[in-house]
Amino acid sequence: MKAIVITGGGGPEVLQLQDVEDPKIKDDEVLIRIAATAVNRADTLQRQGKHPPPKGDSPYPGLECSGTIEAIGSNVHSWKVGDQAIILKFDVRFEGLFEQVCALVGGGGYAEKVAVPAGQVLPVPPGVSLQDAAGFPEVACTVWSTVFMTSRLTKGETFLIHGGSSGIGTFAIQLAKHLGVKVFITAGSEEKLTACKNLGADVCINYKTEDFVARVKEETGGKGVDVILDNIGGSYLQRNLESLNFDGRLFIIGFMGGTVTEINLSSLLIKRLTVQAAGLRSRNPENKANIVSEVEKNVWPAIASGKIKPVVYKSFPLEEAGEAHLLIESSKHVGKIILLVQ
Amino acid sequence: MKAIVITGGGGPEVLQLQDVEDPKIKDDEVLIRIAATAVNRADTLQRQGKHPPPKGDSPYPGLECSGTIEAIGSNVHSWKVGDQAIILKFDVRFEGLFEQVCALVGGGGYAEKVAVPAGQVLPVPPGVSLQDAAGFPEVACTVWSTVFMTSRLTKGETFLIHGGSSGIGTFAIQLAKHLGVKVFITAGSEEKLTACKNLGADVCINYKTEDFVARVKEETGGKGVDVILDNIGGSYLQRNLESLNFDGRLFIIGFMGGTVTEINLSSLLIKRLTVQAAGLRSRNPENKANIVSEVEKNVWPAIASGKIKPVVYKSFPLEEAGEAHLLIESSKHVGKIILLVQ
Repeated sequence: MKAIVITGGGGPEVLQLQDVEDPKIKDDEVLIRIAATAVNRADTLQRQGKHPPPKGDSPYPGLECSGTIEAIGSNVHSWKVGDQAIILKFDVRFEGLFEQVCALVGGGGYAEKVAVPAGQVLPVPPGVSLQDAAGFPEVACTVWSTVFMTSRLTKGETFLIHGGSSGIGTFAIQLAKHLGVKVFITAGSEEKLTACKNLGADVCINYKTEDFVARVKEETGGKGVDVILDNIGGSYLQRNLESLNFDGRLFIIGFMGGTVTEINLSSLLIKRLTVQAAGLRSRNPENKANIVSEVEKNVWPAIASGKIKPVVYKSFPLEEAGEAHLLIESSKHVGKIILLVQ
Repeated sequence: MKAIVITGGGGPEVLQLQDVEDPKIKDDEVLIRIAATAVNRADTLQRQGKHPPPKGDSPYPGLECSGTIEAIGSNVHSWKVGDQAIILKFDVRFEGLFEQVCALVGGGGYAEKVAVPAGQVLPVPPGVSLQDAAGFPEVACTVWSTVFMTSRLTKGETFLIHGGSSGIGTFAIQLAKHLGVKVFITAGSEEKLTACKNLGADVCINYKTEDFVARVKEETGGKGVDVILDNIGGSYLQRNLESLNFDGRLFIIGFMGGTVTEINLSSLLIKRLTVQAAGLRSRNPENKANIVSEVEKNVWPAIASGKIKPVVYKSFPLEEAGEAHLLIESSKHVGKIILLVQ
């Protein structure tokens, strides 16, 4: 098969489309013929040699994909081969048969085929194109497993999303609004703020021209927000703590502002705050399967009903993966960037 | 009535027994005639002028007490006046009538009487003396509200308690063991380690002679513990994070090692850690009533059945509160220090 190979840690030019061996499935895996994959910031770190794939995962980049199932391992019972040699799943919630799937993968999305544990595969939600579905697994699993499953963000609460126009952000805005949460976002341009507003964000803050702590306080009567989803880390830590309400929860999923910083723990005690961080990629298959199952139960119906729409900024053919990396690194995009495989 | 008055921020000598006005109860409060109170480190900070009582609370020190109810506010229905003009509560779990109570108070325990919201009052558990009961509300509400209600420490998990021989520690060891948790403690002398061992602690670490991170790793096959209860704060933060297992939770309740420190957030993300801190005193009455109610439901039966025993190091008459403060500041004690009021 063809796959994008990282020919050495460096810039986008190290991404080369090459002929490689087809992946082999294990007993609990399925083989997906990939239609599309999506670009994540973690892919750019992997390209630079800073984020190696977990042991046992594909060496090729790509943390999510969509496509069709070509083969199943001997221990896979949730997905079946249909009459016409296609793989079908009967899902009672959608009352239909599915041959088109999307999946959360530990690596290997930038390729024609990938082997993935059956528990990480989801049906393509009705009404979503096979290509657009490639951009849902990472954002849905990240947002659901962090601020909903762990931080227990609930109806009536307030929620600040840093990077509201990112793939994560554009998804989190829609999901949180759908679940009755008041949404605050930060972004760095008027165009991005408008995009977030159009997706339903209630309070849009330009972090380049406004002090987000002051604005959050002003908009919440001095209280602060209940939950923050943060991709900045170090440089925002103390300001995030200042922006939280009593019993507030900060969930960190990225370190665009560094990892090492000073913390004043007394602010945690006074306001009873929680600071958490987690990634998806390092979780074991059982853990990922649990998240995927919760996402299918809690998020997929909202997509199927049109409450959450894919936000795709641009699609590239697979061989232009380097161009796609340049775009995500420029931060000019709003939403997801898709790579079309076939 | 008589009460210990803080005559100015300073050493134990500023604690003076004086005649003061009796407290007046509000509609949702009860008036307790105090039999005993207990000494907490927060009292010594308040004495030094570093920990002022929350607005509306008594200016006198003392965060817990035991005694008898003398009067009830017009909106109090959970506690009733009995035939002989004593206050009775019928508690179905203990199948009996109670006139003796203990309570979590926002201040004013070092006195002959205190007004306290009815929701913060607990019956004295059967088998516990009225005097010893004064030492249960703070430790029970602190330990239950932190590592159990919030960090969700559960059967089969591992749990490290810093300061295992403190009032909090001696209670936490017994409660955690009773609930099927494997308990690790740190303490600073062989005498204290032995006391913790005798209360059921599985792994006792002398922090003066051993590296607790290395010992925790060694005893857990390199994994670390699931939950840490910490009263040190800043100086232990990074070492605590290193001592945690995947999905580990650090709960900070004190800052004997300072509040400001450096943190490496990447260790949180890699191991999916949670850092939390909270105090009891600043919580509002509804919040405290909720904790007290959960404690009565989940902890009181374990005390009533003898699975958790009071650990009292020494009792002083109220007028010797200064001596009691000297003792707690010396850290020579194991368990609680009680002040006898009458």
